[in-house]
Amino acid sequence: MKMPEAPAISRFPVPALADLPEDVRGRILEVQEKAGFVPNVFMVLAHRPDEFRAFFAYHDALMLKEGGLSKAEREMIVVATSGANDCLYCVVAHGAILRIYEKNPVIADQVAINHRKADLTPRRRAMLDFAVKVALRSSEIEERDYSCLREHGFTDEDAWDIAAIAAFFAMSNRLANMTGMRPNDEFYLMGRVPKR
Amino acid sequence: MKMPEAPAISRFPVPALADLPEDVRGRILEVQEKAGFVPNVFMVLAHRPDEFRAFFAYHDALMLKEGGLSKAEREMIVVATSGANDCLYCVVAHGAILRIYEKNPVIADQVAINHRKADLTPRRRAMLDFAVKVALRSSEIEERDYSCLREHGFTDEDAWDIAAIAAFFAMSNRLANMTGMRPNDEFYLMGRVPKR
Amino acid sequence: MKMPEAPAISRFPVPALADLPEDVRGRILEVQEKAGFVPNVFMVLAHRPDEFRAFFAYHDALMLKEGGLSKAEREMIVVATSGANDCLYCVVAHGAILRIYEKNPVIADQVAINHRKADLTPRRRAMLDFAVKVALRSSEIEERDYSCLREHGFTDEDAWDIAAIAAFFAMSNRLANMTGMRPNDEFYLMGRVPKR
Amino acid sequence: MKMPEAPAISRFPVPALADLPEDVRGRILEVQEKAGFVPNVFMVLAHRPDEFRAFFAYHDALMLKEGGLSKAEREMIVVATSGANDCLYCVVAHGAILRIYEKNPVIADQVAINHRKADLTPRRRAMLDFAVKVALRSSEIEERDYSCLREHGFTDEDAWDIAAIAAFFAMSNRLANMTGMRPNDEFYLMGRVPKR
Amino acid sequence: MKMPEAPAISRFPVPALADLPEDVRGRILEVQEKAGFVPNVFMVLAHRPDEFRAFFAYHDALMLKEGGLSKAEREMIVVATSGANDCLYCVVAHGAILRIYEKNPVIADQVAINHRKADLTPRRRAMLDFAVKVALRSSEIEERDYSCLREHGFTDEDAWDIAAIAAFFAMSNRLANMTGMRPNDEFYLMGRVPKR
Amino acid sequence: MKMPEAPAISRFPVPALADLPEDVRGRILEVQEKAGFVPNVFMVLAHRPDEFRAFFAYHDALMLKEGGLSKAEREMIVVATSGANDCLYCVVAHGAILRIYEKNPVIADQVAINHRKADLTPRRRAMLDFAVKVALRSSEIEERDYSCLREHGFTDEDAWDIAAIAAFFAMSNRLANMTGMRPNDEFYLMGRVPKR
Repeated sequence: MKMPEAPAISRFPVPALADLPEDVRGRILEVQEKAGFVPNVFMVLAHRPDEFRAFFAYHDALMLKEGGLSKAEREMIVVATSGANDCLYCVVAHGAILRIYEKNPVIADQVAINHRKADLTPRRRAMLDFAVKVALRSSEIEERDYSCLREHGFTDEDAWDIAAIAAFFAMSNRLANMTGMRPNDEFYLMGRVPKR
Repeated sequence: MKMPEAPAISRFPVPALADLPEDVRGRILEVQEKAGFVPNVFMVLAHRPDEFRAFFAYHDALMLKEGGLSKAEREMIVVATSGANDCLYCVVAHGAILRIYEKNPVIADQVAINHRKADLTPRRRAMLDFAVKVALRSSEIEERDYSCLREHGFTDEDAWDIAAIAAFFAMSNRLANMTGMRPNDEFYLMGRVPKR
Repeated sequence: MKMPEAPAISRFPVPALADLPEDVRGRILEVQEKAGFVPNVFMVLAHRPDEFRAFFAYHDALMLKEGGLSKAEREMIVVATSGANDCLYCVVAHGAILRIYEKNPVIADQVAINHRKADLTPRRRAMLDFAVKVALRSSEIEERDYSCLREHGFTDEDAWDIAAIAAFFAMSNRLANMTGMRPNDEFYLMGRVPKR
Repeated sequence: MKMPEAPAISRFPVPALADLPEDVRGRILEVQEKAGFVPNVFMVLAHRPDEFRAFFAYHDALMLKEGGLSKAEREMIVVATSGANDCLYCVVAHGAILRIYEKNPVIADQVAINHRKADLTPRRRAMLDFAVKVALRSSEIEERDYSCLREHGFTDEDAWDIAAIAAFFAMSNRLANMTGMRPNDEFYLMGRVPKR
Repeated sequence: MKMPEAPAISRFPVPALADLPEDVRGRILEVQEKAGFVPNVFMVLAHRPDEFRAFFAYHDALMLKEGGLSKAEREMIVVATSGANDCLYCVVAHGAILRIYEKNPVIADQVAINHRKADLTPRRRAMLDFAVKVALRSSEIEERDYSCLREHGFTDEDAWDIAAIAAFFAMSNRLANMTGMRPNDEFYLMGRVPKR
Repeated sequence: MKMPEAPAISRFPVPALADLPEDVRGRILEVQEKAGFVPNVFMVLAHRPDEFRAFFAYHDALMLKEGGLSKAEREMIVVATSGANDCLYCVVAHGAILRIYEKNPVIADQVAINHRKADLTPRRRAMLDFAVKVALRSSEIEERDYSCLREHGFTDEDAWDIAAIAAFFAMSNRLANMTGMRPNDEFYLMGRVPKR
């Protein structure tokens, strides 16, 4: 079976770039310039410009800020929790970014399928255990979960970062599942082939 | 057992109003003016001003916009999904708002504990079934879920609204559970006593 | 949406007080005298007088007896396990009683929604952890669960009390869910407003 | 491995027959006369005479009354729901009674392990589907569950019987699991060997 | 209700012994000679001779080999994991073999219904905890599970045996459930009546 | 983080090729010749030659035989059920084979993460729904599951194939999780880059 030509990237209407408000279009052109293509999450969420703006403002506040977690670690949290939530778009798109940040072609699949079997330092294993607990059983979070993070060198602010990223992608996974958001084909191969 | 005096409203530091950036403080003073007190979610999230701004921009984009869902229906979605996620803050705070919007002192407890046993029209029952599925099993959402909503008069844009609110509070519930966010005592009684 | 006038309190026939056997009617009049109204559980279960008699005899044997648990603690067990079972009637009715016994307007919602986040002493937290395990995973109860209770000062007889109350309300929750038992409107406000 | 001699039948104290109140002892002697031995549930629960009296009054009200369900069908409900709750005592003891009532040496194991694979009429299959739903997911019981029973000839009063038996054994299973109630060795063989 | 005469032992075609390949028939006649009857699993799987051969080669490699586990212990693993998977055939057939090996008429029901309440040495309890984890949550197996086995005297090779038996019967349970494999009536009574 | 050099492919001893029995070594050399490398499952399971032989005999009987399912469809069943079981080795290794058979670089990730969102014909969707039910809830398989397959053109023999593959990989996933079986790095890229 071949994939049909140009399958829909959302079950909702996808706006034309030209019809979008200036700031939304600007943001999209910027990412296109940087990545070489427009990740579908931008076009799918642009159907609702106000929600688009808030979504990416929140995303940037969590993923681009300074802090105790490396960028690769933040993507790891996204991949592990999105795997736990069976979210195709986020596993594939953020898996690609994780492979690139880590310069490791196999880490994303490891983390998405079962982070317990991934090649991880004990620190990162503790980080992902906490993130997945926030994703799946947040009402059971207790002080001992924070102590466990501290034993691996995480501060309370780091804990907030881990939990907030897991929480933000709890939302994001649901939006992707609800819209039937389709990952761009480009993501699947990114970071898998060593550059020369 | 009496509650201890002034229990913490967050396990993280809570900023003083005076130390907050102008716009964040402004937003808080505005809600205080309107509600008569500052709901704790504002003070707890103000620990991170950038995240605060994005959170409330997103909240407003979903909860204050025009659309096919009434404000009471939006709160109902919050209460049902927060109940499904065992989130104390959101059940208590949004339960209060729901009682006021609906002028119904019992609806919030009904919806939070078991929306299937609540006094609901079939339309609202279908709305909450969809919202709770987004909250708990979003990877299983299929076209037939949308058809089911359409049979009760919801458009696809309404479906996005329902799902996006459920998704936003999936995040919000996790933030509340992670911070140990404490509901203000005021919420528990609001909307329970008929006004004269 | 307003609630319909006088919604049914059971999906089964509800007997008239006059048609009930002497002893059943007597018990109901007694509670009415004391509470000022007849809690719906009495009228709903009176449809089957023999089961009514056994139900309340059992209830009284567990809830009114002397023992190591205070009356408030027994109600706390009811509220926590009924919350875990999504039982509207028991959460609302016993939540009211708990607020009154504890003179605490917020404790019932805390315990019903997530007892882990409630304002509880470690002793009471251990009590509710055990009760909820009996409610949800009784086949996994082991000696270490009893040891854990003993560390918090509970005797084996107290453990029986906790477990037996959780077990009795496992039955009661199922009867309420099966009959669609409706809480009296009076319960929702009881114990929420300080008396002067 | 041989079983140790005379293993405990309860992790709680078991009273001597001679120390029991007259009526409790009477009931026990009566069942001994009839069955040839005293089922352990009687001795284990006799540790609390008031609860004993209520338990057996309730049991008799549900299991001995006239009604649309045969005695065998009532035992089937006990066995299926006790299997779903992993309760050793109730599966073994009521499995024995079921085999005898049905004169069928294999039906109890079939129903306890997986009632969907048991040799059952469609009517009995529907009865057990409803009972197991009450046992495991009673908050999801809806009108359509009652309609489904009606299609197989059950009245609403029969539905109450099915649900009340499932609810009573939800309690009973938890009491057995909590006390570590041990089935009498006699039960394991009863009804398995055809009488001549 | 009496069982219908000669109910089907599989929902798929069951071959006649005469139509089977020589080696398959030989294996079946051999077991018949030894057991006095042909366990239905042989006839049901003989529908696919190649799969039959691989299935029993695998079975024998795990169940008949020398090693640190006694034959009774291997059957215990089968009964506990098949109980966890609600597999009628394997619980009944291997329960019979377990009773015989252990010369204990009650052990199989104990282990199948709830191995935590069975009369087991701590060593065997640890063995079954590990086996049931492999059966139900194998992706969570970690080094500490192996350490726990070592504390009870199991080697790593024993651990492989336990896990491989649990894994093989994960397959076997699914084959039995899929074919509707019916246990022979003979199994239900085997090992229950002491021989003289 | 870079992966450590040459991480272990199993937590159990891995034999040297030279030490293996002739037939086992032959099978391994054959696959090496064909694939260009030795998939780790061969070396990991070769620790137990008898189990190795039975495992691959069973594998071949299911995966190489003639029948109504294409080879790609059989691999799809492996990938979907291994995803449901969080098995890293089987998702990665069989995902590679699926991509090659389907000449589709994205299908394996789609099927592993959430087969409901994959680009599938209704026939293949029905096939995977059945396979995943066998993997996760085989005790609930009923005649209506077979009818559903028939509506999509599958025969009963096809249903056996689907279920038997799901069952075999239920075993295989558990063996991989138990041994900590590591996928060869080669698999991650196979079938992702179009050949020229």
